[in-house]
Amino acid sequence: MLTHAALHPQLEADTVFVTDLPLSTVLLARDANYPWLILVPRPAGMVELIDLAPQDANQMMVEITICSHAMQTVSACHKLNVAALGNQVPQLHVHVIGRFKDDPAWPGPIWGVVPAIAYAPGELESRADQFRTAINQQSAD
Amino acid sequence: MLTHAALHPQLEADTVFVTDLPLSTVLLARDANYPWLILVPRPAGMVELIDLAPQDANQMMVEITICSHAMQTVSACHKLNVAALGNQVPQLHVHVIGRFKDDPAWPGPIWGVVPAIAYAPGELESRADQFRTAINQQSAD
Repeated sequence: MLTHAALHPQLEADTVFVTDLPLSTVLLARDANYPWLILVPRPAGMVELIDLAPQDANQMMVEITICSHAMQTVSACHKLNVAALGNQVPQLHVHVIGRFKDDPAWPGPIWGVVPAIAYAPGELESRADQFRTAINQQSAD
Repeated sequence: MLTHAALHPQLEADTVFVTDLPLSTVLLARDANYPWLILVPRPAGMVELIDLAPQDANQMMVEITICSHAMQTVSACHKLNVAALGNQVPQLHVHVIGRFKDDPAWPGPIWGVVPAIAYAPGELESRADQFRTAINQQSAD
């Protein structure tokens, strides 16, 4: 029987829920500096991508693809950054970030460059709605 | 007919060849700060992971898995970092980096933190040999 992991408190604090895909829960980071999705596979005890069962690793790539297309649709970003780092939060999570040539960290990676900026009231939920719609559309294709 | 991309000059300059997997050429970064493989899928014109054909995206995950296991075998790293960023070098490439809790960038990401350190004479080739052996072993499993 599959055991589902509880969301790490740091991921819980830093994000809002967007949607559940078959393998992963999709979250939106509370940081208006960048459009930034985080995919958290739900099987318990995952730390590295290679901890995923082979069919889950395939599905991970499918869900990265879905969220990447949704990111392009919603944000019209110039570049996608996809990464599984996890040096600070051990629960396996995959970042799908929309990058812009005038964003605060360009062309470097985003982590630790500038403090998070809160979204304006209502904007976080509205962004999460846009991503949910785009991800559902991609999943249906 | 499949056209193969030439390796971007920056990747050529910063790495040595390790081996060819079915989809990707595997390179080792000339930076002794971190054990650092770079996978470059050979189809021409790839920029984002989502540019890969669906069967190539599956194969990309297989090859990330092979190189991740090889990284653990060769380096005994504490954590894997896997990332497709490409903000500076547009040719699609995937980093598979072995991280240590006492490496110069821990716990942040490695890019742009400290200048690259050259390997000692012979050590780069010896490391590339170790990775080639481990990757071939993983591919055979």
